[in-house]
Amino acid sequence: MALIGASTQQGRPGHQLFQNMEACFGDRFYPVNPRVDRIGDKRCYGAILDVPAEIDLAVIFIPASAVPEALEGCAEKGIRRVIIESAGFGESGPAGKALEARCLAIAKEHGLRLWGPNCMGLINVHRSMVLSFMASWVWQGVFKPGEVSLVVQSGMLSAGFLTHILSRRPFGLSKVCSIGNKMDIDETDLLEYFLDDPETEVIAMYLESLERGRRFAELARSTNKPIVVLKGGRSPFGKQAALSHTSALAQDARLMDGVLRQSRVIRVRGMTELLDVARCLAVAKGKGPSRPRTAVLTFSGGGGVVTADHIADQGMELAALAPSTLSRIKEMFPEWMDPSNPVDLYPAYEKRGTIETLKHTIEAVMEDPGVDAVYLHVFAPPVHTPPYDYDHMARLMADHRKPMVVWILGPRESVGKVAGEFEKRGIPAVDELNRGVRVLAALTMRA
Amino acid sequence: MALIGASTQQGRPGHQLFQNMEACFGDRFYPVNPRVDRIGDKRCYGAILDVPAEIDLAVIFIPASAVPEALEGCAEKGIRRVIIESAGFGESGPAGKALEARCLAIAKEHGLRLWGPNCMGLINVHRSMVLSFMASWVWQGVFKPGEVSLVVQSGMLSAGFLTHILSRRPFGLSKVCSIGNKMDIDETDLLEYFLDDPETEVIAMYLESLERGRRFAELARSTNKPIVVLKGGRSPFGKQAALSHTSALAQDARLMDGVLRQSRVIRVRGMTELLDVARCLAVAKGKGPSRPRTAVLTFSGGGGVVTADHIADQGMELAALAPSTLSRIKEMFPEWMDPSNPVDLYPAYEKRGTIETLKHTIEAVMEDPGVDAVYLHVFAPPVHTPPYDYDHMARLMADHRKPMVVWILGPRESVGKVAGEFEKRGIPAVDELNRGVRVLAALTMRA
Repeated sequence: MALIGASTQQGRPGHQLFQNMEACFGDRFYPVNPRVDRIGDKRCYGAILDVPAEIDLAVIFIPASAVPEALEGCAEKGIRRVIIESAGFGESGPAGKALEARCLAIAKEHGLRLWGPNCMGLINVHRSMVLSFMASWVWQGVFKPGEVSLVVQSGMLSAGFLTHILSRRPFGLSKVCSIGNKMDIDETDLLEYFLDDPETEVIAMYLESLERGRRFAELARSTNKPIVVLKGGRSPFGKQAALSHTSALAQDARLMDGVLRQSRVIRVRGMTELLDVARCLAVAKGKGPSRPRTAVLTFSGGGGVVTADHIADQGMELAALAPSTLSRIKEMFPEWMDPSNPVDLYPAYEKRGTIETLKHTIEAVMEDPGVDAVYLHVFAPPVHTPPYDYDHMARLMADHRKPMVVWILGPRESVGKVAGEFEKRGIPAVDELNRGVRVLAALTMRA
Repeated sequence: MALIGASTQQGRPGHQLFQNMEACFGDRFYPVNPRVDRIGDKRCYGAILDVPAEIDLAVIFIPASAVPEALEGCAEKGIRRVIIESAGFGESGPAGKALEARCLAIAKEHGLRLWGPNCMGLINVHRSMVLSFMASWVWQGVFKPGEVSLVVQSGMLSAGFLTHILSRRPFGLSKVCSIGNKMDIDETDLLEYFLDDPETEVIAMYLESLERGRRFAELARSTNKPIVVLKGGRSPFGKQAALSHTSALAQDARLMDGVLRQSRVIRVRGMTELLDVARCLAVAKGKGPSRPRTAVLTFSGGGGVVTADHIADQGMELAALAPSTLSRIKEMFPEWMDPSNPVDLYPAYEKRGTIETLKHTIEAVMEDPGVDAVYLHVFAPPVHTPPYDYDHMARLMADHRKPMVVWILGPRESVGKVAGEFEKRGIPAVDELNRGVRVLAALTMRA
């Protein structure tokens, strides 16, 4: 591995890249910087051609104008894979566009594959490989291996924003790909890779344009691995902003809308939602049946009403519970109240306690053929006693192949503990009412 | 103060009401329970007529069927104000409806005002007065006095959900009113009260129906105090659920839509959003100018693009920066990059540092007559240095009368500290990108 543009200055991105690559590759890492012989204890090379080893991959982080020459060096050295993290290319105007064209011509001539430019490179969490200029103290201890892979056209989403979310709501990652202007390697290449990657079960993308829509759609339709996409530039204002960010054009945007709509991709509207839905899909191990008739079990009438509105917002349905299901639930209820969906269990809790009420009610709705999914609201201890026999709940879910999501209210620590119990049994736990409905939509619908 | 239905049993709602009222009123509190002489050390009375004092207000928490008789007792005792927290009235069917009619007839005959039933009563945070059956350990230490008053048709929103949010994102409250079936006192009575209440600057409501729409609209249009409303039953599914929760009817719902749309009320779609927007309006001390042309200052191209989409979603506008503003900003930028709105400051940070860049840029956009509001994204330390001279920023905001909202990314503790600095100067801080845009919409638009 080589880094062209290793910096000696603590805190500079080029030094952070140096540190990250040194930490992962040690002796197999060769930094290049023509102005110094060493960075710390590490021998530095004046040019890529001076490196006394074969190089599998070079990361370039030097001013844009110097990149074509560096690429020529890489080609001469026999390197086939290059990640360009420098900015100042297509996103900065016509001169940058011309630079990109020169780089691509060099790549084509010599059979190089290019990643970037204007990006934060690749992270492989399973191998602690961070080919990104993110400072190590930002990512160390925050990344843990898992099944979600990210492809993003935003450095922030592969760095600061990602670690911000992970430090608040940890989940496991496989690969994080910041692809920037993607002048060669694009989201469709990466999608193809991830469909065959045994370490990836859920793919989440932030895209401002889609380069090869037809192939992307073909791939997306061929897989059961869920694909979640946040499109930047959904609106006229956003399109205009995307143009100056990654030079994504409006005509691409229109095409992209159509492709995503037709290829069973789960489309989201915000960055938190992107990571939240991907995380919950990984917890639930993929998607469930493709109907969205939901039974809501709550402890709050108002919570039930607002949930019903969120269900409508998502294009889902409230399940019409069978009369036999309603009579079974009614056994738990006080005389003066008849159950309906959303099922407000509070009066039943008062009469029968939370554990018996929930056990009985969840069984009833899971066995109702008109119910496709269950949204459970629980109040974490000490307000309510631990709400259920978690294993029994997970068994019901597996037997009936009906996904379940839980919204948990209460003191932070207690919520975290209860959420952990649910999630290790494949039941995603959310902290906001509307998010649970969003996740259920992702779990039950075809897009 | 009297409580009809004080329970001896620890953990029962009737005991929690007893504890809350005893804590607030001490000797001026008279519990009623015909089965016991004492609850703990406290003398208990067999009937309201046995109480040896004049009673200003009685709280009733006994089975619904016994409430009319209790009301007769209150009337005979000369009590004019009664809060009925018991459930089992209109929300449970025709028999409960008939009970409500009997209660109302008694009230009319004797000049009583009724609050409830099926509710969690009134909380006055400035006076630590909790006339609710919420357990004291749930609310103690969580409620702090402030300027936001709540009117809610959902016990959860005045109890568990409210404390859940407050424990994560504290803000000050004035009064919390859980009005339940509101058979007499309704949201319009309370709105009238809050418009004159010097302790209330922002009014937030969760409503499933609106009883006196014309008067409500009149009041709402007469005030500069912001009113934020979450309507439960926005959708057909929600309407159906609201019917069984508080017996809100579909025809009311249609009327309500029209009234809210016409009366400059800020309408929100979820419970977290309701509290979030109300909190931020209190931080910003009300609403700003009524135009929504926003300048976005970010450190992430992708963050800018997604923000632009959220701005479009909210019906707001990205400001078209004046050429002179763009040249001023360009002074901070590297040669290869031209600024546009959203302004991606990252390359300028690299060149000039965060403090100088921000100071210069915020001044430029605040002075642009085409900018009505500023959305600032900052990365809390240690990633970036503390982002600015907060006082200078607050002065600019005041001088130009342009609201500003800040989205802060980073380690939790650092974010909290930076948020505190912004908020004490009237700049609301949010933790999610889309929320900041929602708050800006509330601050800049007429609804």
